[in-house]
Amino acid sequence: MARKTGILGTGMVGSTVGAKLVELGYEVKMGSRTAGNEKAAAWAKSQGAKASHGTFEDAAKFGEIVLLCTKGDATMEALKLVKPESLRGKTVIDISNPLDFSKGMPPTLVQQYTNTNSLAEEVQKALPGANVVKSLNIVNCQVMVNPKKSGGDPTMFVAGNSGPAKEEVKGILKQFGWSDIIDLGDITGARGMEMILPIWLRTWGATQNGYFGFKIVR
Amino acid sequence: MARKTGILGTGMVGSTVGAKLVELGYEVKMGSRTAGNEKAAAWAKSQGAKASHGTFEDAAKFGEIVLLCTKGDATMEALKLVKPESLRGKTVIDISNPLDFSKGMPPTLVQQYTNTNSLAEEVQKALPGANVVKSLNIVNCQVMVNPKKSGGDPTMFVAGNSGPAKEEVKGILKQFGWSDIIDLGDITGARGMEMILPIWLRTWGATQNGYFGFKIVR
Repeated sequence: MARKTGILGTGMVGSTVGAKLVELGYEVKMGSRTAGNEKAAAWAKSQGAKASHGTFEDAAKFGEIVLLCTKGDATMEALKLVKPESLRGKTVIDISNPLDFSKGMPPTLVQQYTNTNSLAEEVQKALPGANVVKSLNIVNCQVMVNPKKSGGDPTMFVAGNSGPAKEEVKGILKQFGWSDIIDLGDITGARGMEMILPIWLRTWGATQNGYFGFKIVR
Repeated sequence: MARKTGILGTGMVGSTVGAKLVELGYEVKMGSRTAGNEKAAAWAKSQGAKASHGTFEDAAKFGEIVLLCTKGDATMEALKLVKPESLRGKTVIDISNPLDFSKGMPPTLVQQYTNTNSLAEEVQKALPGANVVKSLNIVNCQVMVNPKKSGGDPTMFVAGNSGPAKEEVKGILKQFGWSDIIDLGDITGARGMEMILPIWLRTWGATQNGYFGFKIVR
């Protein structure tokens, strides 16, 4: 199993997932737009010897697996700063959500990535040599790395064109604590995973609790 | 509590939900495009004295509560055959899903009702005097009326502009067996409930089991 991971993005998602990976024994390089980013440097310092930081390209090149933890509206821009050959043949986990905050709260999805398309499909098109897997985007970052809930174990999904890449991602999900993982098929399965965000946002608003998951009960 | 219900639609959803309402002691009139519809007549006969049938308008006028159980692409057309005054002041439960089968399987959503709009919002606009509540559309019709699952009780949602109408719907949901009901706020909350269909469809395809529900686990 790959032990070197690159994380693109210095926000809550990248910091939280990155810390969990370090805890699990992975070496993690956090990438940002420019070298020497203060948040990335502070994160790496807090995580000890297995953590480092650099540019998006540095993180992409370093990782045997690479996680896209950018805000959805920054994902495609971040990938422009990465050489496609740095990700060739690698598993790329897309955790980002194409949220559009321009119409007020709660956000909608970016129209061009919705329904008949998805951000994950655009990522796969931009990186034809990589094996993109959509996952984890349907819960907040604390639940991503600690999914056990008193109401039961929530379900996680994966979608992507490469079976071996999805198996690799399932292995990481199990290490995070996910016990029920459903494979939604090829990368177009990401549409449903991104389109679940509106009910996630409304449920958060209604319950004032963002620490929930979706469990498929049969 | 209202005891007379009208059902618009003669398919699986209308037949199943209508039968459950009859079982619970409601009087139910099933409406279709034309009077004397064979499926509606056969359904009413099978359900005994508390069931009847007629046109969409007959069912709308009859019901103190009216359920929209039409296929999503037929909902707006069906409402054109109903006099708005027949639904004025009434609770209208929109169970329909705006699925677009024209692009192959699995269906997408109808683009103009997605993300920044929903079918339920269009229904509310067409019936400004009615109190539209979106509910039940996120599971198959057997689960609608029998939600208990070995994996736990799934969650149901309601969205609509009228608090009293939502309370009325919650009462029916509880009679159907739903124990966990989340109020997503005004009718725009229906967007998330309709946009959950793509992951429903993919999960059905992946598990070959359509008898599941979504449980919000906290």
